[in-house]
Amino acid sequence: MSRFLNEKYRKLEAYTPGEQPRDKKYIKLNTNESPYPPSKGVLDAVNSRETADLRLYSDPECKHLRQAIAELYGVDCDNIYLANGSDDILSFSFMAFAGNGVRAAFPEISYGFYKVFAELYNLDYIKIPLKDDFSVCAEDYYGLNCFIVIANPNAPTGKTISKDEIIKILETNPDNVVLIDEAYVDFGGESVYPLIKEYKNLLVVQTFSKARSMAGARLGYAFGDKELISDLNKIRYSTNPYNINRLTLVAGEAAIKENDYYKDNCNKIIETRSFTADALKEIGFEVIDSKANFIFAKSNSVSGEELYKSLKAKGILVRHFSDEKIKDYVRITIGAREDMEVFLETVKEILEEVK
Amino acid sequence: MSRFLNEKYRKLEAYTPGEQPRDKKYIKLNTNESPYPPSKGVLDAVNSRETADLRLYSDPECKHLRQAIAELYGVDCDNIYLANGSDDILSFSFMAFAGNGVRAAFPEISYGFYKVFAELYNLDYIKIPLKDDFSVCAEDYYGLNCFIVIANPNAPTGKTISKDEIIKILETNPDNVVLIDEAYVDFGGESVYPLIKEYKNLLVVQTFSKARSMAGARLGYAFGDKELISDLNKIRYSTNPYNINRLTLVAGEAAIKENDYYKDNCNKIIETRSFTADALKEIGFEVIDSKANFIFAKSNSVSGEELYKSLKAKGILVRHFSDEKIKDYVRITIGAREDMEVFLETVKEILEEVK
Repeated sequence: MSRFLNEKYRKLEAYTPGEQPRDKKYIKLNTNESPYPPSKGVLDAVNSRETADLRLYSDPECKHLRQAIAELYGVDCDNIYLANGSDDILSFSFMAFAGNGVRAAFPEISYGFYKVFAELYNLDYIKIPLKDDFSVCAEDYYGLNCFIVIANPNAPTGKTISKDEIIKILETNPDNVVLIDEAYVDFGGESVYPLIKEYKNLLVVQTFSKARSMAGARLGYAFGDKELISDLNKIRYSTNPYNINRLTLVAGEAAIKENDYYKDNCNKIIETRSFTADALKEIGFEVIDSKANFIFAKSNSVSGEELYKSLKAKGILVRHFSDEKIKDYVRITIGAREDMEVFLETVKEILEEVK
Repeated sequence: MSRFLNEKYRKLEAYTPGEQPRDKKYIKLNTNESPYPPSKGVLDAVNSRETADLRLYSDPECKHLRQAIAELYGVDCDNIYLANGSDDILSFSFMAFAGNGVRAAFPEISYGFYKVFAELYNLDYIKIPLKDDFSVCAEDYYGLNCFIVIANPNAPTGKTISKDEIIKILETNPDNVVLIDEAYVDFGGESVYPLIKEYKNLLVVQTFSKARSMAGARLGYAFGDKELISDLNKIRYSTNPYNINRLTLVAGEAAIKENDYYKDNCNKIIETRSFTADALKEIGFEVIDSKANFIFAKSNSVSGEELYKSLKAKGILVRHFSDEKIKDYVRITIGAREDMEVFLETVKEILEEVK
């Protein structure tokens, strides 16, 4: 830290992304990436002609991609906001829709970045505890009069709240934006994006990083009333109007046009999730029922930290969080079936070793 | 604008990027892009294998690209910061190094975004007038005790200040960061990045958008003392740690390794700039001596706005600013020689028409 850094950021604790070690080849089950490559259309779209055109700025309005998304989902272009990863949408939303007397509220155990954004923008915020079974208690958010952020499915648990509960949250917080972070919705959840027509305070955030196999392309999108979208664009045009690069724009458009490929992949992942959860339960794990592309599980014989470390030593990365309430668990991304078979064999080895 | 937007952003006037009309094919001389495509190595680096790997997150440390830049420039990796376009570096710098009693200061006529960042972060700031000949008066910045931002070469004039003047600014503002925005330095300016070893308050910002033909890839970089770089990383890890996508990272690395190609292109642009400036002077233009890939010029017979509009009607885009002090001028990006020949012929036609 330099002595020039503005005092208000000195104590800021940044987000810790999942580790990306380069010392050897790991089976990566730690950052919820897809085991499947992007669709053929994406591989075709990112070609030499497009690369040669990198000399030109990208379209700040991202017109083609917004049109493609609008058509697929049956909404207007004006209801779509695009960003360099959904983290940027979350960041701008904390900036735009909280502060100046409006508190932020989000689940105590959820995506770790919410707290970081709240601290970064110096917001008053409340972290709302989960129920004992790790589910989000929707009622706690009724009439809260806060900028509300809920990941649905939630991370790292994979648990969901219902559309009816979200409607109740929207209706009892009419003067605040309710942001539903649907990064993992394609693996068995139900998206509430159709509600944007009725609820002007609803912002639904999705991403190309998970179901659409494009984590490394950085592309997030949001659905909302056109006034909310125009607020986010105001912030975007005041920071970095060309925030999405040309290749990501063409890749995203191609991906949207091959939606069936991604749906098939999601179905495969759902199947593999069920296979993995069953196999873990058989060897004494408690596995939380997940609607995401990961499962959150706890062994009855080895601690979360030990399991994480032993797996890493054997070439498999999963995610462990040191937070007291969830430290017994590990979060395991659902990879390809073969990866999960290796994972399960390795877990069995580890359990044998600690016996 | 929604009724949910935080009051402090309601009056914010966002930056207006150069227009990107899609109605027909224009000769684009309005956003300072390169007329040359990226080098062959870049076209090769962005291939199907890398595109398939988009399923994985990019390296948040951007290790390979930072190493390549560090080697080319003879600095340490820790002295290099990378971002999704240099606008992000500017934005984070205004956030990190001004505020809490530290004012920002920048030239009154310069890159329009400086003012937007200052407003966005609610900073006290001063705009320092240029001299009558449109040059930055370095002395005005001596002992200012502000976070100082100077584009060198400056935009939209193309004029430079000297290394000695920058040293004096650094030495007389020891408690503040001095940011030198060198977006256009490769077209005849002198970079001050070697001074980072001596001056811990110096941040030098460059970009792949201009000389390196990668405006559409979004890649900016900065040189600074490692403590300054770590401050910027703190903000980055608190907003979007994966801010640069995989394809841009490999493209950037390939570009750095083919530096000679880009140097040749810069030399061609310098030659074409001189050709264009001479030709404009011959037909009654006042042309400011430029060290950038654009020239700022004023006709003795047609207003800046009229010239801009007439050129657009004839399929050529240049940039016009309505600010009173510079409204007589247009900023003309230096394109390929052929483009500039068409441009000059078209200007002559317009001058004939207004006679």
